[in-house]
Amino acid sequence: MRLAVIGVGLIGGSFALGLKQAGKVSHVVGVGRSRTNLELARDRRIIDSIASDPSAAARDADLVLVAAPVAQFARIFQEIGRSLAPGSVVTDAGSTKRDVVAAARSALGARIAQFVPGHPVAGAELSGAAAATAGLFLDRRVVLTPLPENRPESIQRVEDAWKACGARITRLDPEEHDAVLAAVSHLPHLLAYALVHDIAQRGNAEQLFSYAAGGFRDFTRIASSHPEMWRDICIANRDRLLQELGRYRAQLGAMEKLLQAADAAGLEKLFAGAREARDRWLKSSS
Amino acid sequence: MRLAVIGVGLIGGSFALGLKQAGKVSHVVGVGRSRTNLELARDRRIIDSIASDPSAAARDADLVLVAAPVAQFARIFQEIGRSLAPGSVVTDAGSTKRDVVAAARSALGARIAQFVPGHPVAGAELSGAAAATAGLFLDRRVVLTPLPENRPESIQRVEDAWKACGARITRLDPEEHDAVLAAVSHLPHLLAYALVHDIAQRGNAEQLFSYAAGGFRDFTRIASSHPEMWRDICIANRDRLLQELGRYRAQLGAMEKLLQAADAAGLEKLFAGAREARDRWLKSSS
Repeated sequence: MRLAVIGVGLIGGSFALGLKQAGKVSHVVGVGRSRTNLELARDRRIIDSIASDPSAAARDADLVLVAAPVAQFARIFQEIGRSLAPGSVVTDAGSTKRDVVAAARSALGARIAQFVPGHPVAGAELSGAAAATAGLFLDRRVVLTPLPENRPESIQRVEDAWKACGARITRLDPEEHDAVLAAVSHLPHLLAYALVHDIAQRGNAEQLFSYAAGGFRDFTRIASSHPEMWRDICIANRDRLLQELGRYRAQLGAMEKLLQAADAAGLEKLFAGAREARDRWLKSSS
Repeated sequence: MRLAVIGVGLIGGSFALGLKQAGKVSHVVGVGRSRTNLELARDRRIIDSIASDPSAAARDADLVLVAAPVAQFARIFQEIGRSLAPGSVVTDAGSTKRDVVAAARSALGARIAQFVPGHPVAGAELSGAAAATAGLFLDRRVVLTPLPENRPESIQRVEDAWKACGARITRLDPEEHDAVLAAVSHLPHLLAYALVHDIAQRGNAEQLFSYAAGGFRDFTRIASSHPEMWRDICIANRDRLLQELGRYRAQLGAMEKLLQAADAAGLEKLFAGAREARDRWLKSSS
C-alpha cells in the first residue's frame, strides 16, 4: 500500500510510523508547509519521499491521510481532487467533522464517496514530526463518521489502517461527533488556555507560577497544545463550543452562589459526586 | 525527636515516612478519625503508636504536625493546647493559612509562639495512609508563614524537618499565601470539579465520558481530590477564591466574545501566548 500524508506532524507522522511498523505500507510520501519538518520526517524514516504539493502526493496513493489544521482542508481537498485516482481512498484526522465533510463535498464533488472522515481521539501537547511515535494510537479511540456515499471497501481500508496502528474504531455521525467532542475535548482546551492566559497577564505572574504545583501542571497540560490547530478547531466547531461554554459559565455561576452562601454541604456534595463520576469513568476506561 | 501526627493521611503519613527514612524521628504517634486508617498506618510502620486524641498525641512530642481538613483545626488546636509542653513546636499542612493562624491564636493564646504555620505544596488526588510515601515531598515546595511571635529555633525545627523530607522551603505571609494559592491551586480544583459535575449530570454522560481522552483525564485529575478537604479549603479561603472565580468568569466572557466574532487571530494570539507562558514556566521549574 502506498500512503500519502498531508501534514506530517504528530498525528500524520505517527500514523505513518504505526503502519510502517505493522508492515502495511511500502511507500509513504509526505507533504507540508515546513520544509524543515518534512526533512526531519524523512531523516526519521517517517516518510520515504517529499512531494511538492498535495496533488502530487495523492497521485499514486492507495490511501491519503489529511492531517493538517482544519482550516486548510478546503484548499487541500481541492488540490487532492485534481489527481485522485478512482481506486484511492482519502481520510483525515481533523478534530471537527461537520466542517471537514462540508469542505470535502464542495471540493471533491462526485468523488466524495472516496472520502471517509475520521478523527483519532489521541494526541499530546507536542507537535511536529519530531514528536511522532509508532505507538501513539495504541488502544486509543478513532472515530469514523462515514458518509452515505462511502463504499464498504473504502471504509474497511481506513478501519484496517487504524487497527494496524493499534486503535479501537467507533462510529458516530458528524453532528454527534462535534457535539461530544465540544464537551470533552474542545471546551477543556479553551478552559486551560483561559486560565494560563489570565495568570500570565498579571503583574505578579512570575510569583504565581512559582507556586504552581503538579495539579496546575496537569490541569493546564493541554494549554501547551498547538495554537493554530486549536484556533481552527474552535472556529470550525464554534456553535457547539459556545453552547458548552455557556453551560459551563452557568455551572460556575452556581458554584459562585454556593461559595457566597458558604454552603459547605452543597460544595462537598458536588465535589464528592464529581470525584465518584470521574473515578467510575477511569475504572471503566482502563 | 518524637513526632505526633494529627491526621495520618497522604500528607501526614508521607511526612512521618520521610522523617523516618532520614533517621530524624525515634517515635511517631498518630491520631485521627478513622481507626481503620490508623491501624493501616501502624501496619505500614508510618506510625509507631496510636493516641486516643490530639491532646494525648501532643503530650510528649517535640514536633506536632496537624494534617487534617482545615475546618477541624480549631478543635484540634484546643485539644493540643491542653497538653502542649513548653519545648514543643506545632506546625501544620493546611492549604489555607489565614484561617489556620486565626484558629491557632484563638485556641493557643500565649502559646501561639510555639505554632509555625506551614503548607507543603504537594499532594495528589490520592488520600489516606495507604497513599503515603517517603518521597512525596522530594523537591516540592513547602511554604512557611511564620508568625512574629515565633522563636527562630522553632521555625528552624520545622524547616529542618521538611528539608529532611527533601522539600524546598520558602516563606510568605499568610495573606499573600492565600491569594497566591487561590489563583494557582484552589481555583483550578474548583474548575475541574465543575467540569466533571456538569458532564456527569447529563443524560448522555456515559457517551460523553466514553470519548474523553488523555487531555480530559489530566485536566480533571484534581477533581478526584478529597471532597471534604477541598470543601474546607474553599470555605476557608472563599473571599480570595471568589475574586479568582470572578476574574476567570470575566476571562471566559472575553473568550466567548472572540468565538462569537469568529476572531481567529485573537484566539490564536491568546492560545500562543498561553502556550509560551506555560512552556516558559515548565522550563524554569524543572
